[in-house]
Amino acid sequence: MMLINGVVGHELPATDRAVHYGDGVFETIAVFNGQPRGWHRHMQRLVVGCAKLGISQPDTGQLASEARQLYKDYGEGQARLVLKLIISRGSGGRGYRPAAGVAPTRIVALYPWPEHAYDWYKVGIRLHVCETRLACNPALAGIKHLNRLENILASSEWQDKDIDEGLMCNMQGEVIAGTMSNVFAVIDGSLHTPSLGQCGITGTMRARVIEAGVELGIRINERAIQLEELYEADELFVCNSILSIVAVRQLGEHHYAVPGVVTQRLAAITRERE
Amino acid sequence: MMLINGVVGHELPATDRAVHYGDGVFETIAVFNGQPRGWHRHMQRLVVGCAKLGISQPDTGQLASEARQLYKDYGEGQARLVLKLIISRGSGGRGYRPAAGVAPTRIVALYPWPEHAYDWYKVGIRLHVCETRLACNPALAGIKHLNRLENILASSEWQDKDIDEGLMCNMQGEVIAGTMSNVFAVIDGSLHTPSLGQCGITGTMRARVIEAGVELGIRINERAIQLEELYEADELFVCNSILSIVAVRQLGEHHYAVPGVVTQRLAAITRERE
Repeated sequence: MMLINGVVGHELPATDRAVHYGDGVFETIAVFNGQPRGWHRHMQRLVVGCAKLGISQPDTGQLASEARQLYKDYGEGQARLVLKLIISRGSGGRGYRPAAGVAPTRIVALYPWPEHAYDWYKVGIRLHVCETRLACNPALAGIKHLNRLENILASSEWQDKDIDEGLMCNMQGEVIAGTMSNVFAVIDGSLHTPSLGQCGITGTMRARVIEAGVELGIRINERAIQLEELYEADELFVCNSILSIVAVRQLGEHHYAVPGVVTQRLAAITRERE
Repeated sequence: MMLINGVVGHELPATDRAVHYGDGVFETIAVFNGQPRGWHRHMQRLVVGCAKLGISQPDTGQLASEARQLYKDYGEGQARLVLKLIISRGSGGRGYRPAAGVAPTRIVALYPWPEHAYDWYKVGIRLHVCETRLACNPALAGIKHLNRLENILASSEWQDKDIDEGLMCNMQGEVIAGTMSNVFAVIDGSLHTPSLGQCGITGTMRARVIEAGVELGIRINERAIQLEELYEADELFVCNSILSIVAVRQLGEHHYAVPGVVTQRLAAITRERE
């Protein structure tokens, strides 16, 4: 179910710049018993994304109220749902240059909860090492923009149903992220996660995990990470706002004991609380 | 005016993957007296683009017939029009991974001819050197996909009405293209144009210009080009399928005599014939 600029509907003007250029940003938010989880973090990233792209700032109060309306009308009583928000620059023009005074388009949509996640918590997941690389561009790094062909190509690489997620590197072969998640390694009791200044998305759950690490007195290293280092890691996990933390049991041909001790401690904190 | 999957309309399902991820390709084609110019080159690139992205091959005969229908119903008698084709992977799913059996969406649209082009032919254009860079990813290089945020950011950089186009470099500072054009330099009588194996779009007019160069016995160098080399060039021009060849009179603070002799010879050939 969907609200487009506040109105129930399923269609968008075909002149929208999201259609023509992927000219916008989005957020995917877990909704637990009607409460969007990590709302302020998501809004913060949305606002930063719009600023980086020069899109008029979204009214986050209006987005919150539309999300509530949608839940009330179509989601009431469902324990878990996925809320997706899209802000595009709006409709109009032929050509890359944004016309002045274009009003942004906002899409607020509710989706069912992905049921496969429950199995993933039990046994951990298997990661494929993707051949598709993430290109480096600091102008677009970090934000959750709508130009996602690299993620699509990467997530199309495997057919094996035993593989759950793909790990993506940059052109230099450094690990950046999963196709739909951020990645953390536990090495000698410390947390290591890729720096995302050149590419990747700064996940809201990634920020939450880093906070949880600090809370537990775990040393955090945000840095360039080589793929080979992950094979030597004691524990490996991915995270995103829907799944929270999910342990990795296999990367390529390398296996990890699941769940690892540190992963389990972090998962307990990030699942319990906002 | 627009046909969406063959039907006159202006709206698209908001679940379309073009909206969510920029998951598709497009073409922008000049239509002279009802004849799409360079149709086969455009179809060839569209087919390659779909293949690279794993999108079902478009029926190019159907696209041609829909373009004819649109012209007959809405464009008849207009000497010059712009035809835009978009092929998206289609509608459906939440998540990057394409669902099996999704039918592609096709949009066929007619736009008015850009009138400013006539002035550009007379006096040449002024190029701004963009700060926004093009990221390198061979998986996406060459094709005209819908992930165009870099071009949008670059074309938003200037407000000066005297500037007509922006020149974009890759992260290494090598020249790649204009925000909406390919670029050629004439140096000591030879043609030089950037290699596009890592980023940029292989323009249909770029291919036509290279052919015209061969026809005129001009040596062609497709290679890595430094920005500084362009300042030293004898002539500079940009091209795209709508504008054909347009001479550059100014790049940053450097001026060029317009029109240059080689530019003029190439422009005469590419404007005259398909």
